[in-house]
Amino acid sequence: MKKIAVVLAGNGVYDGSEIHEATLTLLAIARNGAQYQCFAPDVDQAHVVNHLTGEEMPEKRNVLVEAARIARGNITPLSEYKAKDFDAIIFPGGFGAAKNLCTFAFDGIDCKVNPDVEKAVRSTVAEKKPIGALCISPVMIAKILGDVKVTIGQDEATIQAVENLGGTHEKTTHGQIVVDEKYNIITTPCYMLNATIDQIADGAENAVKKILEMV
Amino acid sequence: MKKIAVVLAGNGVYDGSEIHEATLTLLAIARNGAQYQCFAPDVDQAHVVNHLTGEEMPEKRNVLVEAARIARGNITPLSEYKAKDFDAIIFPGGFGAAKNLCTFAFDGIDCKVNPDVEKAVRSTVAEKKPIGALCISPVMIAKILGDVKVTIGQDEATIQAVENLGGTHEKTTHGQIVVDEKYNIITTPCYMLNATIDQIADGAENAVKKILEMV
Repeated sequence: MKKIAVVLAGNGVYDGSEIHEATLTLLAIARNGAQYQCFAPDVDQAHVVNHLTGEEMPEKRNVLVEAARIARGNITPLSEYKAKDFDAIIFPGGFGAAKNLCTFAFDGIDCKVNPDVEKAVRSTVAEKKPIGALCISPVMIAKILGDVKVTIGQDEATIQAVENLGGTHEKTTHGQIVVDEKYNIITTPCYMLNATIDQIADGAENAVKKILEMV
Repeated sequence: MKKIAVVLAGNGVYDGSEIHEATLTLLAIARNGAQYQCFAPDVDQAHVVNHLTGEEMPEKRNVLVEAARIARGNITPLSEYKAKDFDAIIFPGGFGAAKNLCTFAFDGIDCKVNPDVEKAVRSTVAEKKPIGALCISPVMIAKILGDVKVTIGQDEATIQAVENLGGTHEKTTHGQIVVDEKYNIITTPCYMLNATIDQIADGAENAVKKILEMV
């Protein structure tokens, strides 16, 4: 059975992994006959956002501990990820990808990438295995790899950032994917568009299907 | 367009709503051409569980605020639910249903039910509209209504509790539903069985489809 690593960034769109994108990625993997293992970096979240009001809360939460909620407890520190043990790796989106996995939401293209994330991406590329990135995560892949072809949908400021990082951007709409043949990167916009949950399911399904074809 | 209320109990299987069940209920509603609105009671969680270790954390979290993570901020206090404005109501599972919506996880059949939950269930029954309950939530429906026919899967202790509450239990396996024709209650076991995420999607889909047939 093919085995896909899924890297989470917390648990909730505004400070962690977008829950629908994460859950529907896991569903797409299972529906297409593969297995998943969730990972997350063992670091504090950049901050905690009250998802009812949008305001910051005076709390500390850990990315791995909160991501464990999506994974029902079955999650491994990202530092233990070994590309040779998996057929592919996928990064769902949500602000957590741009706050906890890298700092793009705060620092734009001058962002820093979490070292475990960078190592996971580079070691997977070295093994010539596919990397999926949903929503805002493709920006992080462009920060790491540079000359990569990705999609984040239609948002002009983010497209400009991708291009300033050395990447090529292709505009897409709901459920569409873009494949970079050089690095085997599969991207889809998800909630970077004003989407409904069934459109997120389509995007995750199309990305996962393509990844499984490639492995 | 048909409109279904979805009542969340927090965000995470051990102290809130089971995330896959909640997300896949929303997906099933959208996939079948209906709309959803999320609700949750505005109360403190019974406790906070570290989902990595299973241990209690010395924190306070609010059910409505945490459930807003699953709802991407679009959630309403359950006290504002009006049965006349919806075609049906669904309660996904997770320990939150048995800790925050009622206290079954702590008190068994002597549990107390959150007053907003009890009012939501009774007012929906009064309107003769369907109520869906996944996983452990059917026990709460049995606590409120008594002589109801439900399924929680196969777990003998929980089946006994349902029967002690005056209910009738039908054993089911993955994806199967039970329909109570008297009160229009639709139940399915989800993670009360040792299930995979695609089996949860099947259960949510079958329950939602049946509910939409009934309205």
